[in-house]
Parts: sequence; C-alpha cells; structure tokens
Amino acid sequence: MFRINDNYLKLQGSYLFSRVGEKVRAYSEAHPDREIIRLGIGDVTLPLAAPVISALHGAVDEMACRDTFRGYAPDRGYEFLRSAIRKHDFLARGAEICIDEIFVSDGAKSDSGNIGDIFSEQNRIAVCDPVYPVYLDTNVMAGRTGVYDPSTGRYGGVVYLPCTEENGFVPQFPEEEPDIIYLCFPNNPTGMTIPKSELQKWVDYALRIGAVIIYDAAYEAYIREDGIARTIYECDGAERCAIELRSFSKNAGFTGTRLGYTVIPKRLKCGGVSLNALWARRQGTKFNGAPYIVQRAGEAVYSEQGRAKTAEQVEYYMQNARMIREGLKDAGYTVYGGVNAPYLWWKTPDSMTSWEFFDHLLEKANVVGTPGSGFGPCGEHFLRLTAFGSHENTRKALERIKAL
Amino acid sequence: MFRINDNYLKLQGSYLFSRVGEKVRAYSEAHPDREIIRLGIGDVTLPLAAPVISALHGAVDEMACRDTFRGYAPDRGYEFLRSAIRKHDFLARGAEICIDEIFVSDGAKSDSGNIGDIFSEQNRIAVCDPVYPVYLDTNVMAGRTGVYDPSTGRYGGVVYLPCTEENGFVPQFPEEEPDIIYLCFPNNPTGMTIPKSELQKWVDYALRIGAVIIYDAAYEAYIREDGIARTIYECDGAERCAIELRSFSKNAGFTGTRLGYTVIPKRLKCGGVSLNALWARRQGTKFNGAPYIVQRAGEAVYSEQGRAKTAEQVEYYMQNARMIREGLKDAGYTVYGGVNAPYLWWKTPDSMTSWEFFDHLLEKANVVGTPGSGFGPCGEHFLRLTAFGSHENTRKALERIKAL
Repeated sequence: MFRINDNYLKLQGSYLFSRVGEKVRAYSEAHPDREIIRLGIGDVTLPLAAPVISALHGAVDEMACRDTFRGYAPDRGYEFLRSAIRKHDFLARGAEICIDEIFVSDGAKSDSGNIGDIFSEQNRIAVCDPVYPVYLDTNVMAGRTGVYDPSTGRYGGVVYLPCTEENGFVPQFPEEEPDIIYLCFPNNPTGMTIPKSELQKWVDYALRIGAVIIYDAAYEAYIREDGIARTIYECDGAERCAIELRSFSKNAGFTGTRLGYTVIPKRLKCGGVSLNALWARRQGTKFNGAPYIVQRAGEAVYSEQGRAKTAEQVEYYMQNARMIREGLKDAGYTVYGGVNAPYLWWKTPDSMTSWEFFDHLLEKANVVGTPGSGFGPCGEHFLRLTAFGSHENTRKALERIKAL
Repeated sequence: MFRINDNYLKLQGSYLFSRVGEKVRAYSEAHPDREIIRLGIGDVTLPLAAPVISALHGAVDEMACRDTFRGYAPDRGYEFLRSAIRKHDFLARGAEICIDEIFVSDGAKSDSGNIGDIFSEQNRIAVCDPVYPVYLDTNVMAGRTGVYDPSTGRYGGVVYLPCTEENGFVPQFPEEEPDIIYLCFPNNPTGMTIPKSELQKWVDYALRIGAVIIYDAAYEAYIREDGIARTIYECDGAERCAIELRSFSKNAGFTGTRLGYTVIPKRLKCGGVSLNALWARRQGTKFNGAPYIVQRAGEAVYSEQGRAKTAEQVEYYMQNARMIREGLKDAGYTVYGGVNAPYLWWKTPDSMTSWEFFDHLLEKANVVGTPGSGFGPCGEHFLRLTAFGSHENTRKALERIKAL
C-alpha cells in the first residue's frame, strides 16, 4: 500500500495569495461598479523590451529550419547565455565566477524550491520573519521542520530571524546555530536591504559555523544606493559558503517567460563533496533545460540595447516606488522599503491588524495590498505594496488613499 | 554544520549518455576524416511544424504589447491548452479527464523526477529492467533505495521487473509487492509495448495491492497497431490508481522547446488525501508554470493543421524505424521494437556485450547506438537505436551495417 509524503499535511491550508484573490473576487462581485487597483501581487505589467522580442522572433525562426533547429539543450544552459551572465552579473562586479558554476533554469522559484534536494533533511534551516513563503514551505514539504503551532504562527525546528521595525528589518545572528540560512536582499516582502559590510558579516558567520547561505538576489536590479552588494560573491569567502539564486522576472519582465539561474561555486564543499557536482547531477536527472528560444531572449537582456531598455523598465517601476513612498509619507503614514526594491512595507495605522487594514483599504479605497502577516508573524501590522503597476494606476491609488 | 543528501553518493558515477559522448568524441578526434552517424540519443531532428512556429511568433507579438502581455501563468497551465489536451488526448479516447486533473509543465523528465516529492520515502518502487534511468535515479536521490551492488548492477530495496527476450519484453507481476510502479508504454528503451488487455491487468493488480502506477505515455503518438491503449485511462479503474506523464517532445519535436503535462485524477487518493491536491500544492510552491509562448505553441499542436503536420513528422520517423527494422532483419540480425515506437532494440551478434558491440559499430561502421546494458542488467547484449535521424543518414547507417 503506497503512502504519501506526510510532511505536506503540516502545510497551512490557504495560500496567502489565494485568500487575497478570494476576498477581492467577493468584493468585486458585490460591487461590480468599483474599479479595483491591484498593488498586491509582485507581477510585472510592462511588455518585454524590444531587443528581447527581436531575439525571441529570431530564435523561433531558427526552430523552423532543419539546419538551425535545436533539440535538448546543454544541461547547465547554453554557453552564449552563461558567458553573458558571467561577464555582466559577476566579472563586472569583481566576482570571479566561472561559466560551469552557473546553472540556467526556468526561474528562481523552481530553484529555490529544488535546491533543498541536495541537502540532508536533518539540516536546521533559518529564515527571516517575514519571509517569501517558498523557502519555508518547501522545507516543510521536505521534512526539515516540525509541525505548525497556530499560537505562534511558526513551525517547530526552524530558526526564525525576526526583521522588525526595532532592528531596522535587518536579521540578527540567532542564538541557535542553523545549517542552512536563507537570505534575500533587496528583501521581499519588506523592500529593505543591508549594506555590503553587513552581508559580509553573514558570510563570515556562515563560514565560522559551517552553514551554507542560500542567497536570493532576484531584486538586485532595483538597488539605487551605493555600498550594497549586487551579488553575494562581492563578499570575501562567499564562494566557500553561498549559493546564489537569480531571476529574469523582475529585471526584464520574464514572469511569464520563465528564466533564472543558480550559482554554485566549485569551492563550496561539504567534506570532500562538491555541491556544484551534486546540483549538476540533480539538474541533469530531474530537469531538461530552459527552452532555447527563452535562453536567446535572456542573452538579449545582456546586449547593449537590452541592458538599456530593461534598465528603463526598472526605472519606471522605481518611479512608482518613489511615488508610493512619498505619497504615503505625505499622508502621514509610516512606510519602509521602496528605495532599493520594488516593494513597500506599509505600517498599518491605529494598530490595525494586516487583514483588518487589507479589508479597510479594499472597501474604502478599492486598493489591494498584501497582508504582511501572511509572510510571517513579524509581518503583522504591515501591508506590502508593489511598484509594478502603471504610473496612472499607482497615482490613482495614492489619491484614493490620501482621501481616506 | 550543514550536511548533504547522502543518497546522491549512492548514484553510479558515469551517466550513460556522457560515457557514450566521451567515447564518440575520442574516436572522432583520433579519426577526424570519418563521418559519424548518431542513432543513439533520443533527440528529434525535424524542425517545429509550421502551425507551431506561427503560434510562437503570434505569442511573442502578444508579449510585446502592454494590453496582451502575460505575466505569471495560472498554476496548472492556461485553460486554452488544458482544454485542447482534454479534448484530443482523453475525451477522444473515451477517457473522462477534467481540466483540473491536468497539470501543464516544462516536460515529462521534470515531472517524472518531481512526482516523487508527494510520496513517502518509505515506499518500495518497482521499475522495469531495462529502464529509462530517470525513474530509478530520482528514487535513489530521494532515499527510496538501498545501495548499488556492482555484482548485480542493481540497487537494494527496489523491485525489478525483468523485460527480456524470453518474456517478450513484457513485465510480469513480481513476487514482492511494490507501492509505486513505473510503467512506460510504448517502451523506452526496448521499443516494445503491451496490448490494452495486458495494461488492464496491471491496473487491476495495482488496485488489488494498493499501489500507484506512474505511467509514462511519452511515445503514444508512435502507436500504429490496434488494441493498444493511448492513455492508461482507457483502462477501467485507472483513475483510482494511476498518474500519467505526457510530453510534447516526441510527438511534436519539443525537446528544445520544453512542454509536458501530468494527469492526476481527483479520485486517486491515499486514505482521504487527494494526490491531485498534493501535486497542486507541490507545483504551486516549487514551479511557476511553462512559458506563455510555449503553452500557445502547445495549443497549436492540437489545431487541425497542427495535428496533421505533427502526424507527418511522426510518420517520417516511423519510416526510419521500419527501414532500420527491415534492414537489420535482412542482414540477419535479431531486432525488436520499432513497430509502435521510435526505438529499436537490437540483439548483439555472437554474444558480444553491449559495450563491445557499441565499440565495434563505432569503429567499423562509424554508427553510434546506445548500449542496452546502460539501461539495466537485462539490457545486456542489446543496443538501442533511435529512429529520429534523417532518412538519408538512417539509410547510410544501414548500408554501412550491412557491409560489416
């Protein structure tokens, strides 16, 4: 008699974004005349940049001819893409990463979930609170946690790193030593980040205690201030303790096109075993590459024109971020993030809970945010807004909020 | 101190196709004047069909405009694609599958590896011998096997189902009852299949012992004879015990375009828990959908023109299969498969081992096959040839083989 993976039963039922979706749908049906502005989910709205579109059309034409048709891709991705990644994302930052340390994938969400495959289920993980739910949920599924405690909103056996107003949303070294540490800077959901000097301390800490850092740099294109690392490999020693996850979703609008990559330096080892080799085996066995046409689209992101056009898109969203940040401050609210990230972390007024404020905003302003408590107990009393809307909608949402 | 997943260390080092590749490279370097014909790896060679190319260009244009741009896809895939799948692959075969039982993915290799996530690591698996290595290796990685025994070529704790010349390459019910049974028909690597009446017996067996069948139907488009199920859901009761994996790689040439899907009927349960819900949670958490443009390409495969053009491609490959089958028989060899599958299972002459015959063929005829022993001990004394080359190369390869 077969048995299921019981760890799945520990997961909490209603996924945050499903519950948000249901509430919006219900409100919308009851008030069909109201125009709802969604600043909740982190999906982009600008179309793909012209150089990316040209590359896609060109690659599609190649797939139409016998001589240029491409079948199975190389396991780690095409060299043309990995070379461009290496040059622009690493060498340009002074980080010596080789192309066989880069693994192209269908996106950072897959990689951040699948990366757990190569680690023992005995490892103790550390995550920030609040946190992007995928890090935590995939570890619950893999059996690296205990059960969920509704009274604390936390799973047993996990080291939580609170990121609160009091500590400036900067995680502190925990009392209990973890084995695997998930970090994401610029951060989703708080929109905050840490200077390179602080990140260096995490690298030093990981090396000291023998932990591995899984570093999610999906939002690096949004960094505007100096002194912030674009990649963890700007930090000394990171090549011996860190895996980096990268995405084309937010810097080039690939949320529906799907492309990402993971870096595992060859110097990152456990005993004598290379994690690069383990991941190569995992990907070679359980994945068959990102589509050729999409890898060509990714290459175009790194062309001169591609870099210029995608930078304009990022700047478009950052104008929204500034507009929201300043607008909310003008209206007397407390808001964090939005300086080096497309996310804003809005403190609820009058000690309202996240969900109370969510309802209030939906009903009174017809604006949708994401309740901070959905990202963890320390997200309570916050709401996440995203900068991925249009200028027009963002401006309109702010006018409504100010009129509350 | 973090720890790796030690199960990876049980895996056997050299992946079959890497070793084949190395041998071919070495020969090629030593003999740069020889033209080598590759009939080894199962990659297609015909370009994408015109209706698929048109759909891709159309979808790329949609991604270029704000009003038609698509971000994150629905978790289970776009309804336009799942509706077409349901109609043509299931309803047309008398199988009542709903669209929310269909999960679109980036390919059957990913799904056949990832599906293990939802099962307990305590389950005992059964695989055919010889077998597509992914089923076995992913279970080794997940800790569902013991160690590898070099003297038998087998992992401990696995129920092997020998498929040999003696039993007509049809797996027999094992003495020891498994929990999860992997079946692939038409079969890779043997190219053989079983009638629907035999498949029904496996469904009945699984229902009787409480096992789940993971059914890989990647090659169903190659079925030419009557009485063979195109989907396991043609069998009575399969919706209570079977998961089906499907691919666009071999019926429409998507090996480098990446698209597949998995069917998990809602009636398939373990205790009261729906496997459909578990997989939905797995995919919703660890996957972000296949690219929009690729899903549109998949839809085009089901259009009237798409079905006609991709059927022509399959027929092109099947002409190769017939050519190889008849050519080898004329030359006095024993060969199986190639009637309902793009694979031929060629018995080595003079009791040569698979690798001896591989070397012989590479050196004397400059033709590359895949050693059967690489698919399992029962594959010893066989070589797999594929029908995915061009008519010209296939003909030329046969002439060289006949001249041996």
